[in-house]
Amino acid sequence: MARTAVWKSIAISLTDDIAQGRYQTGDKLPPEVQLSGRFGVNRHTVRRALSEMADQGLVHARRGSGVFVAAQPTEYPIGKRVRFHQNVARLGRIPAKRILTLETRAAGPREAEALSLDPGAAVHVYDGLSLADGQPIALFQSVFPSDNFPDLLAALKETQSVTEALKHCGVADFTRVETRITAKLATATQALHLKISEGSPILRTTGINAGPSGDPVEFGRTWFAGDRVTLTVSDPNSDKADVS
Amino acid sequence: MARTAVWKSIAISLTDDIAQGRYQTGDKLPPEVQLSGRFGVNRHTVRRALSEMADQGLVHARRGSGVFVAAQPTEYPIGKRVRFHQNVARLGRIPAKRILTLETRAAGPREAEALSLDPGAAVHVYDGLSLADGQPIALFQSVFPSDNFPDLLAALKETQSVTEALKHCGVADFTRVETRITAKLATATQALHLKISEGSPILRTTGINAGPSGDPVEFGRTWFAGDRVTLTVSDPNSDKADVS
Repeated sequence: MARTAVWKSIAISLTDDIAQGRYQTGDKLPPEVQLSGRFGVNRHTVRRALSEMADQGLVHARRGSGVFVAAQPTEYPIGKRVRFHQNVARLGRIPAKRILTLETRAAGPREAEALSLDPGAAVHVYDGLSLADGQPIALFQSVFPSDNFPDLLAALKETQSVTEALKHCGVADFTRVETRITAKLATATQALHLKISEGSPILRTTGINAGPSGDPVEFGRTWFAGDRVTLTVSDPNSDKADVS
Repeated sequence: MARTAVWKSIAISLTDDIAQGRYQTGDKLPPEVQLSGRFGVNRHTVRRALSEMADQGLVHARRGSGVFVAAQPTEYPIGKRVRFHQNVARLGRIPAKRILTLETRAAGPREAEALSLDPGAAVHVYDGLSLADGQPIALFQSVFPSDNFPDLLAALKETQSVTEALKHCGVADFTRVETRITAKLATATQALHLKISEGSPILRTTGINAGPSGDPVEFGRTWFAGDRVTLTVSDPNSDKADVS
């Protein structure tokens, strides 16, 4: 068996320290020179270990001020039923939504296709911000067929919640047909809303939700702050067990 | 109903042009001044439309040379059975894997936990590059319990394929227990391998595959070039239909 590289054993030791609570979220790690002393290696080797840990999202470097233990990201399940409130509350964090804009306008081609509407048909559009414990975790845009849900904008304005507003409009349940996920860089506007830097990693999901009859009721896109959220996709079998 | 903003109708028109093949992947769009003329608006409005289309991944700007139609990303299903070869071949593209390193070493704490091993137990590690039509689409690292699969490294060296190598070692089938997905920025090394710029968006997935008995057989991490791949998660019900 090959010997474990020295930098890798250092990363393993420091990761253990974090796992065991010796260094906690937000704590600053000892400076490189001190870590060099502790492990008996040069600073280059320490830097390689820290860079590996940064790649894994365990620590992040702030230029000129040191290396800090990263907050563990919010786990967000992408399953048959994707519910923001439930997903965040389940982790013991307080969910909240903030309305950015609510409007009714003509559907773009992709929106019309996703909702099985004629191009240019009227849609309600909800742009908003999702927060966990007051920290912005995602921007989202939800698009709904306007003819089916004349009262939806008023219900969204009152509740801020897609689930509640659809329930108010007679859709007691809806399920995710498909989710598409990709990585992007935050634009200046997104960065401003999410309180991250422009060019930070963004996890963008696109999803269609269907009502009990199978008709699409919502076309949604979400831009998650990549450093704050991990999406989880579970084995469909456990999901089956969950809903049976 | 609110009137559609002018910049949005321009984005819709140009998106239609792309959808209908008037501009194809890699084509340069007409310069801003020409688009201003076509739509009878100022350049600021054209720029807003192009910036929205760039957000959607439809076009990308190359500083100083213009705005180009982006390649449509490879769709990569994350389901019960995640198979690189099948996923890429299904799209009519030629799948290939390139070995970067193959080694046997001590498991790190997360690897040991994922594979239900004692910390420090021996694991086989396969670092490699996945390509579609010769274009790098992802870096990956697959970790296997070494005691169960003494011949795995030789089989990987010969086949490059995790599926084939596990089959050779007696694992006829394996399924995904859970996938975790987050967004990162490409490091210099990742950028070099993937032929993208440092700081480009990366979609990182972490997954555990289990054999027929439910024992973990592989702990894998994949770093997809965010601009080249869209992960898709289907309704568990269609997945059920697929395997029943």
